[in-house]
Formats: sequence, structure tokens, C-alpha cells
Amino acid sequence: MAVYTIVEEDDLEAFLADYDVGAALSFKGIAEGVENSNYVLVTDKGRYFLTLYEKRVKAQDLPFFLGLMEYLATRGLPCPVPLQRKDGSGAISTLCGRPAALISFIEGMSMSRPSTSHCRAAGRALADLHRLGAGFGLTRANAMGPDGWRNIARDIGARADRVASGLSRVIAAELDFLGEHWPDNLPRGVIHADLFPDNVLFLRDHLSGVIDFYFACNDLLALDLVITLNAWCFERTLEFNVTKARALVSSYGEHRPLSSAELAALPVLARGAALRFLLTRTIDWLEQPAGAIVRPKDPCEYLNKLRFHQQIGSAGEYGLDA
Amino acid sequence: MAVYTIVEEDDLEAFLADYDVGAALSFKGIAEGVENSNYVLVTDKGRYFLTLYEKRVKAQDLPFFLGLMEYLATRGLPCPVPLQRKDGSGAISTLCGRPAALISFIEGMSMSRPSTSHCRAAGRALADLHRLGAGFGLTRANAMGPDGWRNIARDIGARADRVASGLSRVIAAELDFLGEHWPDNLPRGVIHADLFPDNVLFLRDHLSGVIDFYFACNDLLALDLVITLNAWCFERTLEFNVTKARALVSSYGEHRPLSSAELAALPVLARGAALRFLLTRTIDWLEQPAGAIVRPKDPCEYLNKLRFHQQIGSAGEYGLDA
Repeated sequence: MAVYTIVEEDDLEAFLADYDVGAALSFKGIAEGVENSNYVLVTDKGRYFLTLYEKRVKAQDLPFFLGLMEYLATRGLPCPVPLQRKDGSGAISTLCGRPAALISFIEGMSMSRPSTSHCRAAGRALADLHRLGAGFGLTRANAMGPDGWRNIARDIGARADRVASGLSRVIAAELDFLGEHWPDNLPRGVIHADLFPDNVLFLRDHLSGVIDFYFACNDLLALDLVITLNAWCFERTLEFNVTKARALVSSYGEHRPLSSAELAALPVLARGAALRFLLTRTIDWLEQPAGAIVRPKDPCEYLNKLRFHQQIGSAGEYGLDA
Repeated sequence: MAVYTIVEEDDLEAFLADYDVGAALSFKGIAEGVENSNYVLVTDKGRYFLTLYEKRVKAQDLPFFLGLMEYLATRGLPCPVPLQRKDGSGAISTLCGRPAALISFIEGMSMSRPSTSHCRAAGRALADLHRLGAGFGLTRANAMGPDGWRNIARDIGARADRVASGLSRVIAAELDFLGEHWPDNLPRGVIHADLFPDNVLFLRDHLSGVIDFYFACNDLLALDLVITLNAWCFERTLEFNVTKARALVSSYGEHRPLSSAELAALPVLARGAALRFLLTRTIDWLEQPAGAIVRPKDPCEYLNKLRFHQQIGSAGEYGLDA
């Protein structure tokens, strides 16, 4: 949510000389994204995103992230495309001592209060991403999957109770439950893993782009669907909106049909998806630097979502057709 | 240097309906400016800046700041223009509970290492600003003038010595000196008061815009010149660059001739201009929130500039023609 590295004009000019993008007309650091430094660059040839990858994104993962964006975009998913350097040496450069990439700019606005029709569009885009990503050659393990949850829970330990009374016991019990019930034999593939409304752009009601692939990995496709469901289908009052859930899941299913095993697993997967964000938000909340400007997101939002899914016995109870 | 107020799409849409700018295509919070929230807005009609004024800019000063930008832009200074609302009720709106304005977007890049030719362009733009601003009807006292320095010095007190050993005595002695020697009878008018390289945009070597009028006020015109000199004509190693100083001052003088009284007063004015930023940077440094992301600027840079000017007896010693 900030610019961590200040890029000066000499460095920018030298960097741009490696690309076929013309000369800079405007260059603004923007307050957006995971912990990277992001700039909007306007040149006489167009508009671009310039990202410098700071600590949270590992350099070794960039070929996966950038390669995936390129792979999906060339197959028709509306998503940013990393620009290739003129000398054919790829899309990953170094700028101010950090890995950096120039990425095409996508117009559109994210919806902080998505409507049912936005949910429908998101469901379709996610199914498209899963179908189109099927042939991508690189793989990346999900650092935020079940093993990752256990590691984070261990780091958090009893401190969870500072966030909400009894939370450490809720987490331990949920990890036990998911350890027993987590499905292993569902369709796997490339997932976005973070398709929150911030990461989907719209022009009016038309979906113009899926962005921020920096959690993408290989895992259960239906897990990606419930991560998205959790992010799009609860109201701000934390009530589950059945109409939005039906729109998201049915639109997804029209473009990548869900097996009955996947449908049956949704409640368990949704608990795992809720636990994943409960855990990362809890640790971000506990480890926020004193006086930081960026407020961490509320972990209790995901505790409430987890509790909701704990009451659900079957996908039919979400209002979805089994 | 951050976005303090998050504007959601419903609020933005309602806000934009009051202007003749079309519909939003893209909306990005940017990491720039004094303590305001700044967004770059792209609509189907063009590109704009949307600023929400946070605590540092007082609502009562907005008619002066925005009126001045309008006044200067319509007289030919390249600077942003506040957009008028469709109903003729002016340029100042309310958005998310804060005063807000929509301002034309100016292309260009600021130069963190300005060349001599950039200094020449800045000198001319400053002279143009002073000439063109002469008929502007509103006035605003300089809160960062001699009275303001005394108030800030009182707030800082002995804490100055935490920034540099002996600094509180340097400040007290300088206030005494300036109290005795500050010139009162020089030409006055509208000044920018903060024409640092960040606030001047270039397209290649052509000056495309003067921005950030949120310290503008009425004061000695030659004070504005030495504020600019201090900001543009020292190298990073803090050496004074005579070539740049000559370029800045002579270019200024070609477009607004300096009187011999103004020229003679430059060393004293330059000490005051250095003290002003030494004081504000010292208090920002002392009062930074623990763990803040935005690092305050180094007060000692301006202590060194003050010491440099304390050695100067006449404008001729800067390498300027007396």
C-alpha cells in the first residue's frame, strides 16, 4: 500500500531504454498492491505499470507469476501482460537493486461493494482462469495451503487470544477438523488464490481485468472458488448473500463444470479458505509496526466467516444446487 | 505521501456527477503531495487529479489556493486548473466528509537531480508566477514567515539538540540576527513558497508544469527566489553550485528584474529561507510517529545551507552580478 523504493529519473531512463516503450511523460507512485512499489508510467506509446518487488514477493517466484500472466493474457483472459525486454532476455529486470517488471496497464475500477452481476462476472473469470491456465508449464506450491496454515498457527501460538478471546482454541480445533476432512482427490491446477474484489477491475458492469497474481500457485481449483465466495458473497454486515453466492457459483459452473465431489466438498473447503485469511490477518494484526499508517485488515471478519461455514452441512445449505 | 481517505466507487460516482468530466475508467490513489489524499482519475474525457484535503491544508485557505491556480493558469502559467462544478457553485466540493477538488492533470516528470538548464527554466517560471500573480484579488499571510519561525522555534525548544548538538543555540542566534536584519521594504506579492524540484514538472528539458500551491501566500518576492535557490542550487554533497545559481537568478531577472535592494538582500533572505526549512524539518523529525513508513526529511541538510549563507557577505559572493 505504499511506495517503498523511490525511482529517480536517471534510473528510470536507463531502465526504459531496455524496452520498446518510448520516453516517459509522467511517472507516479501509487498506493496499491501487496508489499511492492508500484508506479503508473505514461510514455508517448501508452500507459504501463512499473512494479519493483520488495521483500514479500520472492525473486525465484517471478518467472511463475509473470509467465502465468503472459500465458493467460495470450489465451484471452483479460489480465496484465509483462513487457519483454528488447534484447529478448525476458521480462524480469533489475531496478534500484530490486527485481522489477513493466506490465501493461488495464483500465477499470475495483468494486468495494460488488453487485450480483459483478459476482457473476467474477465467477466466469475465475473459471476461465482455471481452464486457460491448465496448460501452463511452471508450477508453484501453495505456501498458503494446509501446511502453511499449520506453520502460521504455530507462529501465532497463544497470541491469537489477544485478537479474540478463545481464538487460539478455535484455530487448533479447526486445524484438527480440516486435517481429517480436507479432500485430496479433487481437480487441481493453477489458482489465483487471492481473487478479492480489489483484484478485479470493471468498466461499468463489464469485467475488464483480473490483476495481482502474486499469490497464484497450484492447488485445488474448488479452493479458489470458495476463497472468491468468501471475499464476494458476504455483506459488510457479514451476512451471507445467497443470491450472490448462487450467481458466482453457477456462473463459474457454466464455464468449468463442478464435479459432484467438488460441490460436496465446498463447505469444508470454505472453512479452510476462511481459516487461511483468519490466520494471515491475525499474524499481520499481531505484528503490525507501532504507529504504521497502513491498518491491518480485521481478522474477526474471517473468524465470523469461519463460524458461518462451520454451521453448514452441505452445499445445498448455501442455497446452491447440489 | 499516502492515501488517507479511501474513496469508494459509489461516493466517487456521486461526486463526479457534479462535474462535466464523464464516467470513471480508472482511479488510483497515488503516493504524492503534502498530507492530502491524491488520486489520478481517468475518465472517457481525460485525466484528472482528485485531491481530498486532510488536516494540514485548512478549508478556509482553499479559495486562495484554488483561485490562485485558476488565476495563474488562465494567464498562461503552466499549472493545474481546478474544475468548476456544473451548477456554477465553484470548484470546492465535499467528498467522504472532506473538502475535495478535481484538478486538471499535467504531464511531466519532476527532476530529483535538476541540471543547469532545469534551473534556468525554474527561474523563469518563478518570475512568471510573480508577474502573473500580481493582480490576484485574494491574499493569504505567510504562516511560514518570520513570525511563524519564532512559533515553531518555541515549540521545538531544547529538543533541537536531539537533532544536532548545539542546534537550539544556532536557531536562537539566527532568529535574533534575522529579527535585526530582515528587510521590510522589498517588493511583495503572491509567492509559491515551496518551489522544490518535486513541484516542477518537465517533459524532456521543457518545463510543463508548476504544481502544489498549498504553501502559496503573500510575502517578499525575493524570498521565493532564495527558497528556490536553496532547493535547486546545492548538490547532494551540499556544495553550492554557482553555475546553477547564476542560471536560476539571471533567468528570473530576465523575466522580473531584481532591484538592487533585492539583490543586496539575497544573503539575509537566503538565511531566513534556510532557517524556515531547518525549523519545519526539525519539528517533523522530532514528532514523527514511531514506526512510520514516511521518513521525515533530514533537517541537517538545511542546517548546512544556513551555515553556508552565514558566510556570505554580498550577492556577489554567490557568483551573482551585483
